Amino acid sequence: MKLALLETLRQQNPIVFNISNFVTVQDVANGLNALGASPIMSEEVAEADEMVGLAGAVCLNLGAFTQGQIEQIRTVGRIANQQQKPLVIDPVAVGAIAYRREVAEGLLTDFHPDVIRGNAGEIAALAGVAWQAKGIDAGEGDGDLVAIATACAKKLACVVILSGPTDIITDGERVVKVTNGTPLFQVHVGSGDMLSSIVAAFCAVTTDYFEAAQTACMVFAAIGQLVVQRQPQVAAGSFTMHLMDGLQMTTVAEIETIAAYQLEKG
Amino acid sequence: MKLALLETLRQQNPIVFNISNFVTVQDVANGLNALGASPIMSEEVAEADEMVGLAGAVCLNLGAFTQGQIEQIRTVGRIANQQQKPLVIDPVAVGAIAYRREVAEGLLTDFHPDVIRGNAGEIAALAGVAWQAKGIDAGEGDGDLVAIATACAKKLACVVILSGPTDIITDGERVVKVTNGTPLFQVHVGSGDMLSSIVAAFCAVTTDYFEAAQTACMVFAAIGQLVVQRQPQVAAGSFTMHLMDGLQMTTVAEIETIAAYQLEKG
Amino acid sequence: MKLALLETLRQQNPIVFNISNFVTVQDVANGLNALGASPIMSEEVAEADEMVGLAGAVCLNLGAFTQGQIEQIRTVGRIANQQQKPLVIDPVAVGAIAYRREVAEGLLTDFHPDVIRGNAGEIAALAGVAWQAKGIDAGEGDGDLVAIATACAKKLACVVILSGPTDIITDGERVVKVTNGTPLFQVHVGSGDMLSSIVAAFCAVTTDYFEAAQTACMVFAAIGQLVVQRQPQVAAGSFTMHLMDGLQMTTVAEIETIAAYQLEKG
Repeated sequence: MKLALLETLRQQNPIVFNISNFVTVQDVANGLNALGASPIMSEEVAEADEMVGLAGAVCLNLGAFTQGQIEQIRTVGRIANQQQKPLVIDPVAVGAIAYRREVAEGLLTDFHPDVIRGNAGEIAALAGVAWQAKGIDAGEGDGDLVAIATACAKKLACVVILSGPTDIITDGERVVKVTNGTPLFQVHVGSGDMLSSIVAAFCAVTTDYFEAAQTACMVFAAIGQLVVQRQPQVAAGSFTMHLMDGLQMTTVAEIETIAAYQLEKG
Repeated sequence: MKLALLETLRQQNPIVFNISNFVTVQDVANGLNALGASPIMSEEVAEADEMVGLAGAVCLNLGAFTQGQIEQIRTVGRIANQQQKPLVIDPVAVGAIAYRREVAEGLLTDFHPDVIRGNAGEIAALAGVAWQAKGIDAGEGDGDLVAIATACAKKLACVVILSGPTDIITDGERVVKVTNGTPLFQVHVGSGDMLSSIVAAFCAVTTDYFEAAQTACMVFAAIGQLVVQRQPQVAAGSFTMHLMDGLQMTTVAEIETIAAYQLEKG
Repeated sequence: MKLALLETLRQQNPIVFNISNFVTVQDVANGLNALGASPIMSEEVAEADEMVGLAGAVCLNLGAFTQGQIEQIRTVGRIANQQQKPLVIDPVAVGAIAYRREVAEGLLTDFHPDVIRGNAGEIAALAGVAWQAKGIDAGEGDGDLVAIATACAKKLACVVILSGPTDIITDGERVVKVTNGTPLFQVHVGSGDMLSSIVAAFCAVTTDYFEAAQTACMVFAAIGQLVVQRQPQVAAGSFTMHLMDGLQMTTVAEIETIAAYQLEKG
């Protein structure tokens, strides 16, 4: 776990191009900005090539898309592959909505992601494992989460983050678990989307995407946990505000004091 | 007024499917989440049937729509009726923009809402009563607000919430007034949209939509009022943050200490 | 510098019609509302004429547009000119993305703006001056910023605001510099878009757009600076919240205590 990547990120201020969920786009942009990256957003195919060219990494959110946006997502994904820019995918609600799973599966034949981040229901759906999702939430099931994440990573030949109370990060062989965090992430609808874009920001500053994925999860989870430790009375609204402050102000040294993770395999 | 419905809502965590105003969608999602419901959003007709199927209630915001969105709203409204899911309509700015009133009137022949929530200008427009709206704000007029709300409820055969400093809730016969609240709701553009979706959340946990509508208004107004009582210096930004906290943390017992409402008829 | 315009604005509560960047639309609406204006938003050409008719001023954000939105922007710009409503343009990222510059240049032959507000990279691009922009950020270059702003104002025959640590406001002859502000504006992605719409709000309450532009810049920069002076520990999230409070609560007298500006020419 190379937490010093956070300092690299803040020095390099990488541009992250996001095709974002319309529900959470403002929080995602502000979260990237607060952490030290530079967000750009676009809904227009005509500028896709230029946008990818500017960016150090690309994050595609597969939630809440229209037909027109699918075409743009496909184009941007292909261009990211062509330009060899790291590509992060967030498959929102593919576990709950069959239509979204079908579209996502189609898109994943058109381009290759370097990292996929989703909750248990979403990663299970992409891995082809039975799971009971609930709406856009993770749902619950009996499956072994490590097995699900590993199966998805092997199937799609990429790094997978199965996020939840414990984040599981795997490249199909090695597995790291991050156990920091706070339940308050669940009451802020932008948390998952924000994490996905932060993963992309870390992928822009190292070629080791497994390392980038772990570090992003640790940084995000630890900052959330530190917010609650410092302000125990925070709730839905104040947590979000303090999280943004924390993304900007938290140091690597502060994160190291609480960092809780383990290498399961590898 | 069955305030205990708030506890039911928090236990059941109902999924509310929203077609939301693009201006306020993030606040609406976060507000639902904070209160204890589970928001889902979509702009894509192809997943309308699945989305309604997942949901315990549907809320359609008729503000800021494009031609494409109108078709989606029509489809979702019809499916909600077919699936017998409670349907809440928020007719944003139909009092100020003739185009929106015409579209809304057309849509209301395509599906039947269970609850309509709007300000005085919006409800007057749907009722066919003269009223001077101002932009997206309520405007002012000489009409008897109870008469306007009742006329709208009778005309459209649904529960009507005419919200403002005093919320008027009517099924066309019975009328309840909720007098809690705070003027700070006016400086937060998402307040009305958030209330509409919260009404839908309550409709998901009871079949008595008149009861659901009253309770939603009381819960929302009282939480806003409690925020200001506890933090008298709040203004536009901090009010919104504390409102989100309040939606999550306020108990039925706290609401009961200030609940101010009266049954006018019935 | 007529700071009393802020009081006029709060008394008149002008309606500002915005075609907004989808990333920042909620913050823009809330910022206008907090300051004392009344925001309306629309993405639908069919209601463009009515929307402009309701408004005291129009603000068109040229960031993050799709093909469909370009058509709407063109229509709304022309109608604003026809109805002689003040028109403010925010040319987001035209300095970084050639596609956006081309579209913006085309639009600027279809309607005439009264005020353009952008960062150095954006204004340089419209003026046809070489400049190194970075993503959506201002970038850096060797040019004389006053010369760039003046060249843009002369070329397009309008008031130009080149905003940054120092805001430069010019009508092509006269130049005013506003040196208030805080670096925290940079960590909030909505700051520039919010300022553009606030410029429009001031244009709605005076026919002197050079005066309106200066006053808007001073009010916004000074309120940001006062937030940080009063709460020195603010960061990305809390700054935004306190900025919204400040937009609502800050008086002209408070702004006068720190107002720092100079008339360079004229």
